[in-house]
Amino acid sequence: MKVKSPEIRQGIRASELVEMFSSTAFNARRLGEAAKICKEMIENDSFVFLTLAGAMIPAGMRKIVADMIERRFVDCLITTGANIVHEISESLGLGHEIGSPYADDLELAEKNINRIYDVYIKQEAFEKIEEFLSQIISELKGVYASYEFLWEVGRRIDDESSFLKKAWNEKTPIFCPTLHDSIAGLHVTIYRKDLQIDFFRDVSRMIDLCFQKRKMGVIVIGGGVPKNFTLQAMLLAEGFDYAVQITTDSPQWGGLSGATLEEAKSWCKLKADAKAVTVYCDATIALPLLYTYLLDNLRWRG
Amino acid sequence: MKVKSPEIRQGIRASELVEMFSSTAFNARRLGEAAKICKEMIENDSFVFLTLAGAMIPAGMRKIVADMIERRFVDCLITTGANIVHEISESLGLGHEIGSPYADDLELAEKNINRIYDVYIKQEAFEKIEEFLSQIISELKGVYASYEFLWEVGRRIDDESSFLKKAWNEKTPIFCPTLHDSIAGLHVTIYRKDLQIDFFRDVSRMIDLCFQKRKMGVIVIGGGVPKNFTLQAMLLAEGFDYAVQITTDSPQWGGLSGATLEEAKSWCKLKADAKAVTVYCDATIALPLLYTYLLDNLRWRG
Amino acid sequence: MKVKSPEIRQGIRASELVEMFSSTAFNARRLGEAAKICKEMIENDSFVFLTLAGAMIPAGMRKIVADMIERRFVDCLITTGANIVHEISESLGLGHEIGSPYADDLELAEKNINRIYDVYIKQEAFEKIEEFLSQIISELKGVYASYEFLWEVGRRIDDESSFLKKAWNEKTPIFCPTLHDSIAGLHVTIYRKDLQIDFFRDVSRMIDLCFQKRKMGVIVIGGGVPKNFTLQAMLLAEGFDYAVQITTDSPQWGGLSGATLEEAKSWCKLKADAKAVTVYCDATIALPLLYTYLLDNLRWRG
Amino acid sequence: MKVKSPEIRQGIRASELVEMFSSTAFNARRLGEAAKICKEMIENDSFVFLTLAGAMIPAGMRKIVADMIERRFVDCLITTGANIVHEISESLGLGHEIGSPYADDLELAEKNINRIYDVYIKQEAFEKIEEFLSQIISELKGVYASYEFLWEVGRRIDDESSFLKKAWNEKTPIFCPTLHDSIAGLHVTIYRKDLQIDFFRDVSRMIDLCFQKRKMGVIVIGGGVPKNFTLQAMLLAEGFDYAVQITTDSPQWGGLSGATLEEAKSWCKLKADAKAVTVYCDATIALPLLYTYLLDNLRWRG
Repeated sequence: MKVKSPEIRQGIRASELVEMFSSTAFNARRLGEAAKICKEMIENDSFVFLTLAGAMIPAGMRKIVADMIERRFVDCLITTGANIVHEISESLGLGHEIGSPYADDLELAEKNINRIYDVYIKQEAFEKIEEFLSQIISELKGVYASYEFLWEVGRRIDDESSFLKKAWNEKTPIFCPTLHDSIAGLHVTIYRKDLQIDFFRDVSRMIDLCFQKRKMGVIVIGGGVPKNFTLQAMLLAEGFDYAVQITTDSPQWGGLSGATLEEAKSWCKLKADAKAVTVYCDATIALPLLYTYLLDNLRWRG
Repeated sequence: MKVKSPEIRQGIRASELVEMFSSTAFNARRLGEAAKICKEMIENDSFVFLTLAGAMIPAGMRKIVADMIERRFVDCLITTGANIVHEISESLGLGHEIGSPYADDLELAEKNINRIYDVYIKQEAFEKIEEFLSQIISELKGVYASYEFLWEVGRRIDDESSFLKKAWNEKTPIFCPTLHDSIAGLHVTIYRKDLQIDFFRDVSRMIDLCFQKRKMGVIVIGGGVPKNFTLQAMLLAEGFDYAVQITTDSPQWGGLSGATLEEAKSWCKLKADAKAVTVYCDATIALPLLYTYLLDNLRWRG
Repeated sequence: MKVKSPEIRQGIRASELVEMFSSTAFNARRLGEAAKICKEMIENDSFVFLTLAGAMIPAGMRKIVADMIERRFVDCLITTGANIVHEISESLGLGHEIGSPYADDLELAEKNINRIYDVYIKQEAFEKIEEFLSQIISELKGVYASYEFLWEVGRRIDDESSFLKKAWNEKTPIFCPTLHDSIAGLHVTIYRKDLQIDFFRDVSRMIDLCFQKRKMGVIVIGGGVPKNFTLQAMLLAEGFDYAVQITTDSPQWGGLSGATLEEAKSWCKLKADAKAVTVYCDATIALPLLYTYLLDNLRWRG
Repeated sequence: MKVKSPEIRQGIRASELVEMFSSTAFNARRLGEAAKICKEMIENDSFVFLTLAGAMIPAGMRKIVADMIERRFVDCLITTGANIVHEISESLGLGHEIGSPYADDLELAEKNINRIYDVYIKQEAFEKIEEFLSQIISELKGVYASYEFLWEVGRRIDDESSFLKKAWNEKTPIFCPTLHDSIAGLHVTIYRKDLQIDFFRDVSRMIDLCFQKRKMGVIVIGGGVPKNFTLQAMLLAEGFDYAVQITTDSPQWGGLSGATLEEAKSWCKLKADAKAVTVYCDATIALPLLYTYLLDNLRWRG
């Protein structure tokens, strides 16, 4: 089959462009393929895990995540403590500011502004988050998995565009195996009275989810613990049928975040005949594009 | 200003998405900014250089380049010998095949297939190119700059979608300072009779172009010689007013392809107040997106 | 000061080369500077955190880690569940095999070989680890922080070159905030009877360690949770005095693993005048070099 | 074979460390393998091409290059115009200054300082280079290949540690296919009277060198035109027997600088059974290490 140069006309839809990408090369083609695999995994009624690492919420990806949960394109989210904290900031209306990666960090520190590459968040946002979370943390009693704790958080959020809220509404589990590795984790450490968060309970639930009698799919954004935590849950089951990965890391450094999905087949985390592709691209670009394709090509899942 | 999560609805246009990217973060925001800078540089009647390195033609970017020349969004192209050779292959109808980056290269070698990451080109394509080029090369007499030589090539191409043809039609110069560093360079070496290609003549013409009394802009795709050759031509003039760079290289390796546009200001290649942004992204994704924005937001230039 | 080209003579010591690197450029200079900062932080009796992400133990870095603990160059290690599992494999004499990154992963899967880039580990190693760990896990009762649990593991290891053993001998804490994100985590999930691992207890201990009345230093290998978990513990205290980072990630992707140490100053995780440098290099190369410099330039700490 | 953790003792030689790297993993192992392949290619009396891209001379690699030429470890150098210009700066005693990658580029511009990542070069260095070069350029008559022109330059250099001088002494060809893409190229453009530099003559000479009846080897530092120019010269001959590549680029971007040496086999630029390895590392670190290994393990070549 020939490489085809995209014929771009005025007003072209984003999803058409993604379709055209499949006939080009390099990471455009990989993105086109990823979109098709995601479409197939969702259409075939797979159980879909979405793993989300990197500062995707400060970077403005929250509505896409929320929509994917609401439309049931994904059945379960695995993310980092930081993304949870920043989602709470957004949900409380505190948000994030457009900043510069070349700012003077000492000046920012003096102004109580914290920098995440080119995004700023004010210290006072964390104070409001502390106020909000400390109450929940001090109220809760007993042993919670992270996803159970996050339902309690989502339940108390007032913002209908929050993915924590939507996850509560839909009873979609949000696993956060590194909740303690975040400002929320500091809050739990300080404010808990009778609350225990037991991450091994998350492991157990993840393994259960891997044993369902349906196709299994995973969309990996950015590697890290969310990727590994999800792939390892499949070690005891039969392997993923579909896997898509968007990462800016590279295989040759030997780390997990850049590891190919082929490598995961040696561990039987993917089935031998799994459909799988990795897109090497900043997810702030690739994820919205991927989502336009799903939105234009899929129906709402029941 | 707040980071805004893109509100993606069904049927969203690619150019709208690029617009939304400006209010997100990381490289999506950089891409949104790049699109706006390109729009402004073209609207303000700047003289626009497009530099193109990396295997962009095998990867299917040729129609975008051709369109940008035809619409006069760019006034001059600086590219590599390889991109010229692969454009000739496309123009002669030989094209490129969709391949796999994981193919067995020894098997490919036996089948006379050459691999460029995930694109294949057959050995016989090079034979046809040789047939085509050898005739031109042996006919031409005297001293040519690379852009003059490439006009002669474009003139003899029959394919109206070829950017070499369009450049001939529009009398747009295509500079190829590394023509000798390509299969076309081998052909020149073997078949020339009275032809001389004098790259210092290209240098001279590039410097002249930098001394026009209008705003000067540059769109850098992928670094390499095309980037340096264009920026250095500005050393004697006043510096670029606008500069946009799409690259997958990183500043911390110290090389030119990953060097920031800020660094270029220390050399006075950019004006102190130049509008400039670098997008770290595979150009097979970023360039088509950028182009949709220009197409939807600009009129044809006369 | 001039850039000086290293004068390499026969038999040059690795530590001399690192010294010479300080007068070159790019990442060689960064590595030279990192070595000097590490030397100063250790000489000044700082409390030194070593964070270790990426598959550093499969890649053969264990003896360096063990030596740094034994010589008390580092006072505390923060690492991933995977590195703990692979250290146990080594400690039990099962080790890792030299493999190829281009192997056929389906063939490996059939032979029960798991691949980590160019390193192999047999399935049976994990079985032996399970045997070893399941016993400890089922025996232990009560609530443990990860570092307390790992002391119990180290205590039962017979191999004097194991860093788990040395950490037990020296009572050096090894924090593993992602123990559950590993095969050991699966074992805890399956075999625990009355054991609870409470990672918030680790958070609490980390915060205590940050409040000592001495200089504070951190050596970051590879980003990830170990980096964030350590830097965030400093949020409530006064900030690190010294910080060195070795990473293959890049700032422009916006993630934590590639974030500059300057960015950490906006969060006050580093003091405003902290000595800090990032080396962009595969740690399998940079860490051994750094260590030769410390070994040749420092005395054993008491 | 087992992965072995390096046993680092006090005073360890750099070359011993490189030897130990062969039994580790990731890029340390690749570097160990590269050192062994280079040793074998030189011992087996191969004709060795060294290609050098990236700002290696500003970064302090010149003495290593000069030594490799003097000891005849390499028979021929292919490099960029920029490296030639910066070598002339060093040879004239003007050198380069240690700078900062975070400097204010507008301030530097005002002080007539040009920045190359973390290296500075003063504007006046270029003036002295212009003085030196303009004389040679205006004197020379007739048609020169770049390597013939560079012998004329080397001949006039007074500094015995200059690789341009050593290349003249040894009659080692230095090919510079992008001489025009540098400040020296501007000088040629401005000052030439009867001088022509014909790069197709370089192509021709390179092809001749590829047809020798001995083993052929190539050491690629950093990709770019030097890499492609050398590999393409082999297209008509039988392919390299040995190839070593040090690069910070990655295969998945599809460009030549990051392309694997396997890919080059599909083009028959390497023999099917060529010994070849790529090291993903900043060459300011990897090249000196590689050189210590050669120096400690090889005799001077006659």
